Amino acid sequence: MALFGGIEAGGTKFVCAVGTGPDDIRAEIRIPTETPDITMGQAIAFFQEQRTQRDIAAIGVASFGPVDPDPGSPTFGYITNTPKPGWPHTPVVPLLKEAFDMPIGFDTDVNVAALGERRWGAAQEVDTFVYLTIGTGIGGGGMVNGNLLHGLLHPEMGHMFVPHNRERDPFPGVCPFHADCWEGLANGPALEARWGQPGETLPPHHEAWALEAHYLALGVANIMMVLSPQLVVMGGGVMEREHIFPLVRQEVKTLLNDYIQSPTTTDALDKYIVPPALGGRAGVLGAIALAQRAWQIDHDRL
Amino acid sequence: MALFGGIEAGGTKFVCAVGTGPDDIRAEIRIPTETPDITMGQAIAFFQEQRTQRDIAAIGVASFGPVDPDPGSPTFGYITNTPKPGWPHTPVVPLLKEAFDMPIGFDTDVNVAALGERRWGAAQEVDTFVYLTIGTGIGGGGMVNGNLLHGLLHPEMGHMFVPHNRERDPFPGVCPFHADCWEGLANGPALEARWGQPGETLPPHHEAWALEAHYLALGVANIMMVLSPQLVVMGGGVMEREHIFPLVRQEVKTLLNDYIQSPTTTDALDKYIVPPALGGRAGVLGAIALAQRAWQIDHDRL
Repeated sequence: MALFGGIEAGGTKFVCAVGTGPDDIRAEIRIPTETPDITMGQAIAFFQEQRTQRDIAAIGVASFGPVDPDPGSPTFGYITNTPKPGWPHTPVVPLLKEAFDMPIGFDTDVNVAALGERRWGAAQEVDTFVYLTIGTGIGGGGMVNGNLLHGLLHPEMGHMFVPHNRERDPFPGVCPFHADCWEGLANGPALEARWGQPGETLPPHHEAWALEAHYLALGVANIMMVLSPQLVVMGGGVMEREHIFPLVRQEVKTLLNDYIQSPTTTDALDKYIVPPALGGRAGVLGAIALAQRAWQIDHDRL
Repeated sequence: MALFGGIEAGGTKFVCAVGTGPDDIRAEIRIPTETPDITMGQAIAFFQEQRTQRDIAAIGVASFGPVDPDPGSPTFGYITNTPKPGWPHTPVVPLLKEAFDMPIGFDTDVNVAALGERRWGAAQEVDTFVYLTIGTGIGGGGMVNGNLLHGLLHPEMGHMFVPHNRERDPFPGVCPFHADCWEGLANGPALEARWGQPGETLPPHHEAWALEAHYLALGVANIMMVLSPQLVVMGGGVMEREHIFPLVRQEVKTLLNDYIQSPTTTDALDKYIVPPALGGRAGVLGAIALAQRAWQIDHDRL
């Protein structure tokens, strides 16, 4: 049976793995994200070495962004105008294609994590849902009717505009583009800058969390209004403080004010707003699922 | 060739038509929306009379809401908890099924208008887009990868939470559920209540329009962040004042602040944020397209 390669290409580290799913990972490495030359070189070397021992049929990439995920575009598979030094306009897929004669799948980190959760995680029973990551940034991906969200480019859910009551919270926000957009008010760096210590060290009863839950709930409510997801999966560093989930659910309930009449949103928010079942593994496992998809698409075409 | 029936079931009036598309409408009536008994009765009588003269293969319904559009649900085709007196829990599809032995399509007014624009209007070249109506309420529907948006129920885009600067605009909003949500700040009644006269009579250079464009742009920008649509179609009574389109586009550009790097959003917003090509006909024509779809689905199943 053929194996698949997955790359979770993050702004801090790359995780590369070979296998077929959560219970079958044959090899895995973590590489710090340095320059594209160094890091892509190390990722390629890993898969080249793996190929001497195993049959790899395709590779999937879950990339930090912004990216070009449109297979019809001349810059398909590029990281585009990222603020990360050295990485703007990195041709991730072309570099892999040069090294490997096999199908290469490519999408945003959050879309790929969504795919992982659909295949093996929390979203196996739904076809319209979102996957959010609340960490250094806020990103969102997901599926509508079983198709990954793309459209014009890909969603940028973190950059939604949400109410900001400056009397309650005079903090101006940290987004370099929009100051107090959702991400600017509620990502990890905002949490740290507002309270003078990182989220990891803020105790559960600190007032920081009620405000954080309020902002997160505003974004979740807006996504519910626009996309009507059947499930909202929330991952990322901030959500690892699991005491925040009940606060977010309560705030969402308060904000919706019974407007959306569904048993799910009125009585079962604990099953509606959930952590990723794959935890921090959603990205790399999703990349393996994406590789399988890329292989299947290629196979169907032949 | 078989004909199709379309019903645009609005809160003020029902429009019923028979035909195959914009250039081929054989008959049409408008009925004021009274009680379900009276109005549904008149709609049914219209199609019964039409059937004595023509072959009608299916009927599509574009309904005001909220509705249950899930064909797998026991209350499929119902108007659900609408505030409109007399109309909560109206079994629109069951009433039609009782009268007509033919496929009945049913969806929200905005999803059906989106379908009309996709088939014959502004959205023929795209598969991921939204259709917004800015009128008595604000509603949004659309397609992702060619599929109409449903998910949990259907979108309620008007009820997004957007920034509300009370120093610039102390108006509290008109939404009975959320006060100053998007609809509460920017629908037709809000425009009228804030300025003391209806939008129809406010002159184009009145300060009302800059504020209205600002709110509309906030909602459009948020939808862009969540859904990444390839096109935004804006209809409804407020948008009939066409001088507002350039104001909305300019505000969207200012809000995005070059964050979304696409030629469409940086240079061609005049082709990205557009009025419906079918104008006020998007609903009833979309209903005819929906009837064709319902017939096709039924046909494929046999």
